[in-house]
Amino acid sequence: MKKKKTIIYLMCLIYLTLSVSASSLQAQEHPKLILTKAGVEKIRAELGKVPLFDASLAQLKKEVDAEIALDIDTPVPKDYSGGYTHTRHKKNWIVLQNAGLLFQILEDEKYAIYVRDMLLQYAELYPTLPAHPKTRSYARGKLFWQCLNDSNWLVYVSQAYDCIYDWLSKKERKNLEKNLFRPFADWISVKNPQFYNRVHNHSTWGNAAVGMIGLVMGDDELVDRALYGLKDAPLNTGEKDDDGGFIYAEDGKAGFLANLDEPFSPDGYYTEGPYYQRYAMYPFLIFAEGLENVKPELKIFEYKNGVLLKAVHALLNLSDADGEFFPLNDGQKGMSIYTSSLVSAVDIAYHYGGNNPQLLSIAQEQGKVLLDDSGLAVAMGIRDGLAVPFEKKSINLSDGSMGEQGGVGILRYGNEDLTLVFKYAAQGLSHGHYDKLSYSFFEKGDEVLQDYGLSRFVNIEQKGGGNYLKENKTWAKQTIAHNTLVQNKTSHFKGIYETASKHHSELYFFDASKSEVQVVSAKESNAYPGTEMHRTMALIKEDGFEKPFLLDILKVTSDSIHQYDLPFYFMGQVIQTNFEYKAPETVEPLGNTFGYQHLWTEGVGNASGENTKFSWMNKRRFYTLTTTTTAADEIRFVRIGANDPEFNLRRDAGLLLQRKDVQHTTFVSVIESHGSYSPVSEFAVNSKSSIAAVKILHDDDRYTAIEIASIDGGKHLFILSNSDAAKTSKHKLNINGNDYSWSGPHYFN
Amino acid sequence: MKKKKTIIYLMCLIYLTLSVSASSLQAQEHPKLILTKAGVEKIRAELGKVPLFDASLAQLKKEVDAEIALDIDTPVPKDYSGGYTHTRHKKNWIVLQNAGLLFQILEDEKYAIYVRDMLLQYAELYPTLPAHPKTRSYARGKLFWQCLNDSNWLVYVSQAYDCIYDWLSKKERKNLEKNLFRPFADWISVKNPQFYNRVHNHSTWGNAAVGMIGLVMGDDELVDRALYGLKDAPLNTGEKDDDGGFIYAEDGKAGFLANLDEPFSPDGYYTEGPYYQRYAMYPFLIFAEGLENVKPELKIFEYKNGVLLKAVHALLNLSDADGEFFPLNDGQKGMSIYTSSLVSAVDIAYHYGGNNPQLLSIAQEQGKVLLDDSGLAVAMGIRDGLAVPFEKKSINLSDGSMGEQGGVGILRYGNEDLTLVFKYAAQGLSHGHYDKLSYSFFEKGDEVLQDYGLSRFVNIEQKGGGNYLKENKTWAKQTIAHNTLVQNKTSHFKGIYETASKHHSELYFFDASKSEVQVVSAKESNAYPGTEMHRTMALIKEDGFEKPFLLDILKVTSDSIHQYDLPFYFMGQVIQTNFEYKAPETVEPLGNTFGYQHLWTEGVGNASGENTKFSWMNKRRFYTLTTTTTAADEIRFVRIGANDPEFNLRRDAGLLLQRKDVQHTTFVSVIESHGSYSPVSEFAVNSKSSIAAVKILHDDDRYTAIEIASIDGGKHLFILSNSDAAKTSKHKLNINGNDYSWSGPHYFN
Repeated sequence: MKKKKTIIYLMCLIYLTLSVSASSLQAQEHPKLILTKAGVEKIRAELGKVPLFDASLAQLKKEVDAEIALDIDTPVPKDYSGGYTHTRHKKNWIVLQNAGLLFQILEDEKYAIYVRDMLLQYAELYPTLPAHPKTRSYARGKLFWQCLNDSNWLVYVSQAYDCIYDWLSKKERKNLEKNLFRPFADWISVKNPQFYNRVHNHSTWGNAAVGMIGLVMGDDELVDRALYGLKDAPLNTGEKDDDGGFIYAEDGKAGFLANLDEPFSPDGYYTEGPYYQRYAMYPFLIFAEGLENVKPELKIFEYKNGVLLKAVHALLNLSDADGEFFPLNDGQKGMSIYTSSLVSAVDIAYHYGGNNPQLLSIAQEQGKVLLDDSGLAVAMGIRDGLAVPFEKKSINLSDGSMGEQGGVGILRYGNEDLTLVFKYAAQGLSHGHYDKLSYSFFEKGDEVLQDYGLSRFVNIEQKGGGNYLKENKTWAKQTIAHNTLVQNKTSHFKGIYETASKHHSELYFFDASKSEVQVVSAKESNAYPGTEMHRTMALIKEDGFEKPFLLDILKVTSDSIHQYDLPFYFMGQVIQTNFEYKAPETVEPLGNTFGYQHLWTEGVGNASGENTKFSWMNKRRFYTLTTTTTAADEIRFVRIGANDPEFNLRRDAGLLLQRKDVQHTTFVSVIESHGSYSPVSEFAVNSKSSIAAVKILHDDDRYTAIEIASIDGGKHLFILSNSDAAKTSKHKLNINGNDYSWSGPHYFN
Repeated sequence: MKKKKTIIYLMCLIYLTLSVSASSLQAQEHPKLILTKAGVEKIRAELGKVPLFDASLAQLKKEVDAEIALDIDTPVPKDYSGGYTHTRHKKNWIVLQNAGLLFQILEDEKYAIYVRDMLLQYAELYPTLPAHPKTRSYARGKLFWQCLNDSNWLVYVSQAYDCIYDWLSKKERKNLEKNLFRPFADWISVKNPQFYNRVHNHSTWGNAAVGMIGLVMGDDELVDRALYGLKDAPLNTGEKDDDGGFIYAEDGKAGFLANLDEPFSPDGYYTEGPYYQRYAMYPFLIFAEGLENVKPELKIFEYKNGVLLKAVHALLNLSDADGEFFPLNDGQKGMSIYTSSLVSAVDIAYHYGGNNPQLLSIAQEQGKVLLDDSGLAVAMGIRDGLAVPFEKKSINLSDGSMGEQGGVGILRYGNEDLTLVFKYAAQGLSHGHYDKLSYSFFEKGDEVLQDYGLSRFVNIEQKGGGNYLKENKTWAKQTIAHNTLVQNKTSHFKGIYETASKHHSELYFFDASKSEVQVVSAKESNAYPGTEMHRTMALIKEDGFEKPFLLDILKVTSDSIHQYDLPFYFMGQVIQTNFEYKAPETVEPLGNTFGYQHLWTEGVGNASGENTKFSWMNKRRFYTLTTTTTAADEIRFVRIGANDPEFNLRRDAGLLLQRKDVQHTTFVSVIESHGSYSPVSEFAVNSKSSIAAVKILHDDDRYTAIEIASIDGGKHLFILSNSDAAKTSKHKLNINGNDYSWSGPHYFN
């Protein structure tokens, strides 16, 4: 213990030059972190004049008053997520934060008393606590089973402490800091470097927690520890966390700024995916707000070309028409822009990011604002009629700290009528899935072809303590769980995290300049060594089609012969096929490993001709897949759920195209959305495909040409240059005696 | 042919005494059927002053104008439902009806010209048509594959004809009546007695069609044929229709009035169930409106104590909180009070049924009104602020023409927060299912325990021509497809329609007088000869429970030993069980017949103790079943979908309790709804059962006593008198040394 203290002391000395002076921190009056003295005065002056702010305040007051009416309870920790002690301490941090705000805004001492009394209880409890009795975490907290949740607690509670700081006696402050806050900050940092000193969303919470309490306490050492990490923590030891991610980086980078540098691309995409980005946004932005208030000279919002504000924009764009985040990597479906961390994100981005009026419309839909300067600014903007609709457009978001590790391309048509989400990103740290060049497809807020998401019931204790279920590894992360290619029934990178973490796909090109023909194309050559996959997806609106169709060209070149499996995880009910298949009498798992053990075969047949067609219905709309096949291709109806004795997986369906014993091959598919059905009028409108045939007219190293013939006699030609994506390059190709010439990577007519 | 005409002529003579005089019909000016001369004048005077009416008119005008802009098309019939010619002729009848209305209301001749021109095309086409080329129906139409759709056509088109009747030349009228309307009416009646002369929803359409064109043409013979049926049609020959229903009744009853007498109970419940009641409501009410206008002396709305208006009330009560009809018997889910036949029903019931202001709120939600006197009255009522909320309460609806054949009991708590639908009715004609004493359970508009409904994709041509699929017989109608008891893996009445049609369950009692303890109880002794099932279901709100729970006591007494299977078709995902079970490696169908061939076993185990508990989650809410079991009871997770090669069935789940080799037994189950989960806040609230134990304290011929102990220590006792349901009877029972005494069939404390 002594040794560690000495080290910390030395670190202080070393980093003193990087720190703002202690006196500048001490000099400011409280509140200063999120609320500020001046801000509170403005808020008080505007009370009753800003409807959304008043409503948010009234709602909060109601919730807090209801809690205050109950006894304060700080139980001895014992449960996993979802259990009573977990839920109670989680509730406490929320009530504390909010009671602090109410004290400042309403100047009613009862809220300060409540915060003080609960904090004093914690100050009595905390020193008595060993590590949390549940042992599953790689970094156990004290109040919670993992340091992550302890960090959550401190991020919120430091705000509460800030609000009553000046109101407390010096003795009370001393007690709280000595018995609660300082040891609390130490536990989640120096005592748990494997948690704190990483580039990872967990560490971001840890960093923000330590930094925020540091800002409130005027403790420069803590603030520096937050910004720059621990300096004596180990480098990469090969150890992994509960999710399978490496604990220590090669280069020892850590701390809040490293967590801004590393996982965020210059476009603001967070490499773990939107579900975790949403989770990380709160500590990123709330700590940034605190830094901006207490240490404006850091110019945190300008850091890395304003990446924090870009991240908010990216995240809002990573949602479907209902505002639900695309479940890339480990993502729980249903999480949306209406979650509280996005309320913070939107308000802070508005206030500190140039008052973009499109953000006001989102705040309006969220229906609440932060009770601070930024929330007041948003509510006043809405009151003054400044809101304009938030327009989500097609967007390409690079991945990697320098934007050099692939990315995610989103093609949208109309008012999010149809949305393609195409993933050609890096692994995404420990929450990444093995799904290079996979995609999902949405119509408005409904999934047409789904990304399964994670296998977890977050905070539902009965389901594995609310934590990741083993099917997350055996199914959700595996390649076959995604709409992408599987070679020899083996996941990309053989499902080995170490290998996968070294690679990423490469963007070939992204072109959303014409709304009628939008294209994204990328290549992957590391998932299966010796094999290159080149996938091009185009959202095309043409005459003869009610809505845009999705063209998918997946060109595979390899140095040897393989089996290729391409699944389509359609949502909904089978309407029609153009091929014969048999439903087996008894149903067996499709394999033993790489996720295949979780698939039942419900039907199996062979393609009947050059095009295999399959129609389904979902949410009262019809869809048809038309895909090029040969008679040797096997087609399987599969259903998720084999080897899942706990019913952890949804019994969703898929269609699996299996092409065996080929070396090079090109899969070409078109997915149409068409028509509708109403169970009220019982009318089925346009329930059939508009496609007569899809043909590969030409396919070699240089060009692939696809003809799409529609039922009304129209013929459309899409040509892709396979080896030159330059915008300015000129191309010429003769197909069946006709000459085609064009510039750039693709031709369509 | 000649012979038939002679018979018709004789019928005319015989029934002349029952008819109103021909002169009274002829004397009236047109329109007179649905629109009336006076009504139209009033409508014209109110144009622009009644928002909902104006909006409905504008919407209709837009639709009709769009159709008029296209060429008139009356194609030679060739398709089944969902095919082009079917859909086109269906569209035509709608456009004709609406164009007629627009001509009258807007006085714009273009609409009259359109109606005339299309009718003249039909008059040219019709005489050339043989029976429809598709042969699947027991009664082929000419424009459509079944007389039913031809009748639909005439019900609508007679209204169009009425609207332009006076505007047409005498010669045109003669042409239309000779070549189209009269032979059309004959085809669906005298030429197809097996369709026309039944007590069945098909015949109701036929009767209304013949009657309405008769009213317009002033043809008394047709009107009489409509009201009283054909008089020389065969009696019961044992022949059946496509759905397996008997074609001819024993007593030869037929015609519109017989169709009011027979299938409607005095409470207005229609024996086929709400889905077909909804379908039949339009011809019933629109013909009734026509009769009321043209032959007010019939007092049709007072017929059978006002059963037509009661039927509207019953039907509205047979819907869930979203207005979707309970899918009793053959019912397609999603059909709702927003369907056009319910717009008519609600408007007509308002106008002719004493202006019930609750109906206005439904019309408001429907968002449109009929463009006639009744629609105007409704729209004016809404404009004048008279609407009050429609309150659905607990209700018991008797079945059978005299109300003597069982019924359907609906228990509701709160604002439809929880709704039990308990079926103890008669067979329900050819659309009935073999599911005595079955139930479904709703929370708001969501199914908690589902009734599967029908197996059919109505009007989706790719799915079996849009008609009933064979799985409707092999699965949907079978007992095991419902939440009720199966003996020896055999359906009620062995699934034999002839037997089932002779029997019905008997109400034991219905008591919804106290909202905190509502009970419905019924007995069935014919489904399995030698066995009596007595099922009692109570919706109980008690301290210690967040919401009401459902208590289900199913007492079985038999003359011999059997296997009893009781399924629970829960909706959603498995959360927790208190019993061990194994998931099989390969999955097999559970049986060969009576629907068991469609069930896979996904897990099988034995009850672990006196109570088997199972929790699941659906639509972000938690549910728990607690049921009394013995260690010998087998529990199976089943899934629908075996032997379903066309994917006609939904892959929904069920929990199946199997009790083997017992003679008498009592199943006692409690179903709780509790808590909630939000994927946005990720809070799981009250995710666990509040029940500590459910015990059968006493069970004999006279009394069954159930104790429900809650987690918080509360104990609740429900005692049922098994053999005396009289309200006034006094009872006394000693249980474990305590004396209980009460009056009436049940005790609860």
